[in-house]
Amino acid sequence: MEAIRIGLAGAGTVGGGVVRVLARNREQIAARAGASILVQRVICRHPENRSDLAPLVGELGLDWHALIDDPEISIVVEAMGGIEPARSFILAAIEAGKHVVTANKALLAKHGNEIFAAAARKGVIVGFEAAVAGGVPIIKALRESLVANRIESVVGIINGTSNYILTCMRKEHISFDEALKRAQEMGYAEADPSFDIDGIDSAHKLSILSSIAFGGPISFDKAYIEGIRGLQSLDIEYAEELGYRVKLLGITKRRGNGIELRVHPALVPERRLLAHVGGVMNAVVVKGDAVGSTLYYGRGAGSEPTASSIIADIVDVVRLIGVSANHQVPPLGYRVANEEYLPVLPMGETVCSFYMRIHVKDSPGVLADVSRVFADMGISIEALTQREARVGDSSTSIVLMTHTAREDAVQEAIRRIEALDSVTGRVILLRKEELN
Amino acid sequence: MEAIRIGLAGAGTVGGGVVRVLARNREQIAARAGASILVQRVICRHPENRSDLAPLVGELGLDWHALIDDPEISIVVEAMGGIEPARSFILAAIEAGKHVVTANKALLAKHGNEIFAAAARKGVIVGFEAAVAGGVPIIKALRESLVANRIESVVGIINGTSNYILTCMRKEHISFDEALKRAQEMGYAEADPSFDIDGIDSAHKLSILSSIAFGGPISFDKAYIEGIRGLQSLDIEYAEELGYRVKLLGITKRRGNGIELRVHPALVPERRLLAHVGGVMNAVVVKGDAVGSTLYYGRGAGSEPTASSIIADIVDVVRLIGVSANHQVPPLGYRVANEEYLPVLPMGETVCSFYMRIHVKDSPGVLADVSRVFADMGISIEALTQREARVGDSSTSIVLMTHTAREDAVQEAIRRIEALDSVTGRVILLRKEELN
Repeated sequence: MEAIRIGLAGAGTVGGGVVRVLARNREQIAARAGASILVQRVICRHPENRSDLAPLVGELGLDWHALIDDPEISIVVEAMGGIEPARSFILAAIEAGKHVVTANKALLAKHGNEIFAAAARKGVIVGFEAAVAGGVPIIKALRESLVANRIESVVGIINGTSNYILTCMRKEHISFDEALKRAQEMGYAEADPSFDIDGIDSAHKLSILSSIAFGGPISFDKAYIEGIRGLQSLDIEYAEELGYRVKLLGITKRRGNGIELRVHPALVPERRLLAHVGGVMNAVVVKGDAVGSTLYYGRGAGSEPTASSIIADIVDVVRLIGVSANHQVPPLGYRVANEEYLPVLPMGETVCSFYMRIHVKDSPGVLADVSRVFADMGISIEALTQREARVGDSSTSIVLMTHTAREDAVQEAIRRIEALDSVTGRVILLRKEELN
Repeated sequence: MEAIRIGLAGAGTVGGGVVRVLARNREQIAARAGASILVQRVICRHPENRSDLAPLVGELGLDWHALIDDPEISIVVEAMGGIEPARSFILAAIEAGKHVVTANKALLAKHGNEIFAAAARKGVIVGFEAAVAGGVPIIKALRESLVANRIESVVGIINGTSNYILTCMRKEHISFDEALKRAQEMGYAEADPSFDIDGIDSAHKLSILSSIAFGGPISFDKAYIEGIRGLQSLDIEYAEELGYRVKLLGITKRRGNGIELRVHPALVPERRLLAHVGGVMNAVVVKGDAVGSTLYYGRGAGSEPTASSIIADIVDVVRLIGVSANHQVPPLGYRVANEEYLPVLPMGETVCSFYMRIHVKDSPGVLADVSRVFADMGISIEALTQREARVGDSSTSIVLMTHTAREDAVQEAIRRIEALDSVTGRVILLRKEELN
């Protein structure tokens, strides 16, 4: 049987998983790929600490140029993470005519367009299934399986850390800070959790999904990003009373002549499957005009789930080695450039329903004042309850849900409401995602 | 741009959907496939009734040989359904060197091995994404995306009709017969619903999934099949009280040196996503050793969801036209024959937990008698409740859940229990699927 030699840059959680799974399931992978996959060289910062990998790979080294310079290596796996030297490594590998597989969403969100253009010039494949939702094969689904569809929307829980925190807050009625601490103790959140909880990681992944779905370049810089930091468990409770679960969602949709591209916590109706995706799990709902709604669920991170996707990409490349680039699926799915892609809309132009909690003085006329603002802005209210004041508190809360409205109208309404004498503090705003 | 000409046999729900979606999304599909896809000929029983398709296709005709004989057609889509003439048509198309795309699960379950062998000899592709779970891309996920994994199990709701009936029974507390009538009124069940409600359709699909997952030939004839006919809503209620939903599942798993292959109603824990798949929707959970559990959800039938999968297969073929068969993904995923595949186990050797409802006379000693049988058979009870007798009824019910046990031991226990004087009627048996 033919042997395909690969080089691996990075031997941390992800790289180690790739080596381990390739070794464990060697025979079966070979029987499916039609070739045995040999890890010829592994590059990492501390090869002396990865002697566990030595029996499974050809050579362990320090310098990534050794992968580029090895003419026997036809596929390189980038599992270094971060922007540099990952970007230089990938570009050098492409330049050397090697196919590339990467799990690096941050890199692709920022430099994917450059990397894909370089790959197109050289006729090599860049696989990145592992970059979005870990072990969930959402890239292949969107790029190949749903090719017949005009995609209407892609909505996903694509950050396990945030989903774990939100699940804890709901189930155990604890605060954001307590839940974050729990996530850190469990190893689900990093010491500096900002990328995860501030929505940046979700936005990296969403901007990649959006490009595949709608055919434009990756536009991470145009995404609206709001994380879950500071979310109050009270709102999670109120949302639940109203029949919703709060989830950090990445949402990208067609809207008129543009594309919505936004990450924020959102109320998801309990009757939707997505509402029941708990813990660190990821799930993505894709709606196409022919297929309707489909959902893809699984582990969004971790050593072996990520390795599962990386190896799937490697096998895809193995099958096409020596075949002209005409027969490959291009990174973003379009083989003929889609020149007239839709632009990303400013956040103000997006449309959805809203949940609001407004802290008001317990005095007559407050409700009339607030209602007046909504009426003036043309925003209609679907449901409203006045929550009882707590003992020893002369204030009270208005909790309401709007019908669909434009974001900019709602933001203006909030500015006006916050300016009212009878309103104290900031208005809490959460968006709703009906998934219909 | 290059044009690829296809022939379509069958212009019913599925065939009509293919033509419609190809026409509607023509440009986008071409931009992704890198070629425009033209429906050169459509064959159906009553071309005179399908004048709506005439503007969208080259020619409408009666005789499927016209597709085989047309040298310009490189891909044929079989959307006739049934065994014959579908089988003859597909074999003739393969013989003529054409690639084939089909949604025909009954045909593949029974003659897939023959068809795939013929395709391998001629070096053509047989795509059948639409044959399992309609628009859900489960075939590609299992065959390509999870290639790195040793698959442990595949468990799915793969018959929308049955799932609709079970959803109605649970939500509206109606009987099986009433729910079936509702499904027929809604167009979700056929006048003769046996294929759907007796589990045969699920078993067709499951046997295909099992082969891809575990690498043996399609073994529909070895599947254990039990449908939902006669299921009582009382058991659905009791199951719900215990924290479970009743679903008609297709289940295939590794067990020791064999494969479980079975279709039957099963209790699914409410905390699992699969328990929340309602109505006509389908979902499949695949567990791999690297990726863990992944789930794929969507419409399992219908004109355009099925067309979505058929067109995805067509585009896969279009990308590989002119490329040697070495670069294709073989129908069941293995490029190197897996000679030492595991055999399908007899049902008696499968292992799971069980739900039972035992109708007993309301007399002393009954519980001891029943418990004695389980003890003798080495089956341990996880939970047991004695349900109150109804007014005017001197009998009562014992509802219990066992720990995991072998099917044959449980069947023997049931035989012994039914022979007890204090037991009246048949024991109701449902299996449990923990999905862990």
